[in-house]
Amino acid sequence: MTQTAAEPELQPQAEVGQVVQQLTLLEGEAQAEVFGEILEEAEPGTIALLLESLPLDERYERWNQIAFAERSAVLSLMRAEPRMSLLRQMSVEEVDLLLAQLSAEEMIEWSDYLPDSFIDRALAQMGERQRKRYELYDQYSENEIGRYTEHQALVLSNKSRVEQAQRFFRRIDLDCCENLYLVDEDNHYQGTVSRYEIFRQDPQTQLISLIEPDSRVLSADSSLIEAAEAIEHSSDIELPVVDEEGTLIGRLTLRTATALVREHYEARLMASAGMDESDDLFAPIVKGARRRAIWLGINLLTAFLASATIGLFEDVLAKVVALAVLMPIVASMGGIAGSQSLTLMIRGMAMGQISIGNLFSLLKNELGIGALNGILWAILIGLVAGLWFDDNLIGMTIAVAILVNMLVAALAGVAVPMILQKFNQDAALSGSVILTTVTDVVGFFTFLGLATLLYL
Amino acid sequence: MTQTAAEPELQPQAEVGQVVQQLTLLEGEAQAEVFGEILEEAEPGTIALLLESLPLDERYERWNQIAFAERSAVLSLMRAEPRMSLLRQMSVEEVDLLLAQLSAEEMIEWSDYLPDSFIDRALAQMGERQRKRYELYDQYSENEIGRYTEHQALVLSNKSRVEQAQRFFRRIDLDCCENLYLVDEDNHYQGTVSRYEIFRQDPQTQLISLIEPDSRVLSADSSLIEAAEAIEHSSDIELPVVDEEGTLIGRLTLRTATALVREHYEARLMASAGMDESDDLFAPIVKGARRRAIWLGINLLTAFLASATIGLFEDVLAKVVALAVLMPIVASMGGIAGSQSLTLMIRGMAMGQISIGNLFSLLKNELGIGALNGILWAILIGLVAGLWFDDNLIGMTIAVAILVNMLVAALAGVAVPMILQKFNQDAALSGSVILTTVTDVVGFFTFLGLATLLYL
Repeated sequence: MTQTAAEPELQPQAEVGQVVQQLTLLEGEAQAEVFGEILEEAEPGTIALLLESLPLDERYERWNQIAFAERSAVLSLMRAEPRMSLLRQMSVEEVDLLLAQLSAEEMIEWSDYLPDSFIDRALAQMGERQRKRYELYDQYSENEIGRYTEHQALVLSNKSRVEQAQRFFRRIDLDCCENLYLVDEDNHYQGTVSRYEIFRQDPQTQLISLIEPDSRVLSADSSLIEAAEAIEHSSDIELPVVDEEGTLIGRLTLRTATALVREHYEARLMASAGMDESDDLFAPIVKGARRRAIWLGINLLTAFLASATIGLFEDVLAKVVALAVLMPIVASMGGIAGSQSLTLMIRGMAMGQISIGNLFSLLKNELGIGALNGILWAILIGLVAGLWFDDNLIGMTIAVAILVNMLVAALAGVAVPMILQKFNQDAALSGSVILTTVTDVVGFFTFLGLATLLYL
Repeated sequence: MTQTAAEPELQPQAEVGQVVQQLTLLEGEAQAEVFGEILEEAEPGTIALLLESLPLDERYERWNQIAFAERSAVLSLMRAEPRMSLLRQMSVEEVDLLLAQLSAEEMIEWSDYLPDSFIDRALAQMGERQRKRYELYDQYSENEIGRYTEHQALVLSNKSRVEQAQRFFRRIDLDCCENLYLVDEDNHYQGTVSRYEIFRQDPQTQLISLIEPDSRVLSADSSLIEAAEAIEHSSDIELPVVDEEGTLIGRLTLRTATALVREHYEARLMASAGMDESDDLFAPIVKGARRRAIWLGINLLTAFLASATIGLFEDVLAKVVALAVLMPIVASMGGIAGSQSLTLMIRGMAMGQISIGNLFSLLKNELGIGALNGILWAILIGLVAGLWFDDNLIGMTIAVAILVNMLVAALAGVAVPMILQKFNQDAALSGSVILTTVTDVVGFFTFLGLATLLYL
């Protein structure tokens, strides 16, 4: 969908889909040839996406076509698991050569999934300054913006004048940086000067007099999503990052923020199925099966809980088979209603929009919606069930169970993520499995328990 | 978490959570006072998030504190439903006054949720140029980047010289634009010149000689996510957008792209529970219930399908109650395994990484993982079930059903999103409900069908 200015022709970035199709339909030599052509034009981000979409054997072959100088850039832009799939194919010497090319920022990004022995060797190869930087970033957790700070920034003393800044600017690539940051002798952040001011002002002007009055500073322990939002809503395309003492440790750019936002959401989407943002489309079967087995196991435990609940009521089930037929409806309506409340809550919590102050209003609202839908569907399902089995009692039983379960679902949809947050657990990961357990157990218990009272 | 440069103090943007808490714990006068203070400092994006997190009655009250000049900016940054909640409270005259302030770009954004009568009145109020622009953007669908193009851009004739560009630059706010775009007399895009070149080059230089050789162009019918990716991976912070004839219609900035990426993912997350990105945390109960009822209704149909499947086997259920107890386990293992494959597929499809060429390899991989986990869990669950009910036959029955259902789940997880795409349906919206129907029906049919053969 993109074209170069001079000659409108294929620019693969926005066309990953087309290139993937072109490439995956070919094999062997033919694929190698087309990939060679793509390599000449495409950016590392595209190559990364392409490699990820190839089955492992083809991925290894195409990887060998990539020039050594390009390799670390491509690997850095791949997801962690596909990246590791390539690293595992290499000799120790090859890996070391690659690691030696990484900046502290890239090393941090890789380190989350790299075996410790690799990290140790990489650090040993690093220069003193890079290692110090690595250690600085590594102090921050995966959810703190300090970890993703870019070190490269335009920094001058707060005593400098415009002429010094102008000299500075002539030496560097102007595309690199948007703002100039002033620091005192202890490297404490003092203020931001827009690069454009430098060209307009008299060379003798003190830079400190040009500091933007409202410029923002990010604290290194801010969460990713808060920091990304701050930069998205600010008028700047980069913001300085300071540590607790106010020392300038680098900057966060809008581009990095965009990548972090994307990763945050991908992680949430994958987590909803018990998977990881780093997962490979073509994981080796044993490895892929092992990763997914954990989630299946957790889910099995909750399914056994549901079964055990049903097991309490074998007597009534033996007498009224219709109950077994209708059971899935009770569980499923509760599960869906609960997941709607939960989804709304998780979104609100990620944006910082939910707090102790509005929690009660929210709960009231969700219970109201649950009650209204509960009554509606209870009546409808009760009527259908009564007609289906020609038995009004069973219609009444399921109606009550549906209403109760949908109210409990609303309550659990609000309460479960809040409780998980209290215990520092990620609601996006474990919220839905806990919620479904609650609605399954409550649903079966109400439905079969009530039936026991009425039929036995 | 952010601080101003001059006096390190609260900057609400990155601290929505704290301000929400502060505000929602207060009521009436006290809340009004604090909100007034926040209004002085905070940016429209923060105010928008704050209003969304207030229950409707408080939201209306706080809204009245906002100065008229700020209102359209705040509304534009709110999600569509909360925005409508405020618009619905206003008189026709008030709404018209607000709509009159909107640019064509904002009007497009609002129009997706605005009643037609409002749009017609707003268009009637618009100046000729704004309306033409509105109509230009409105040609593109919600998923095409042309719809979200910013009109404001630095455009000069391809015959201009550097001195004209310099004069141009002195007149405008430099923060607005990153690049200069050259067009011919028919407004066809000719190339991009970096703003920084303008300051470095001789005034007599022809601009056309400064065109960047590799600069990207976005086609107006590119999808949002493709275009956002293109800009994220390019070295520019904005890209020109052209229509089919090559006419320059505007530009896409990295900031807009970031917002679009966020909305894309929010929509996918909300869609997974049958909800909408525009939904209000505090929807009025009747409205909220109605919106969610649709999804509950669709889900009920699939639950009835599952029940009907069970209904085919009433005889064996009456004889072997253990089957009713174990049913949820078969359905749930299939559902979870299928949703794992589906989640991986949807992510890959959104990134353009899945095509007809690698589909077969993917299916083989997923079936391999399904078979491995199927065998593992079939044996385990079979043993537990056999011991629980002291009946080897039931252990065997559930083991076979689990294995079959997990293989079918892998197949459906790959096939369902591809089939939906074939029919231009959004797999993120309807994929999971179709998948669960398949695994429920197949699971119950295999489990109870096999039991009928063995027990009757």
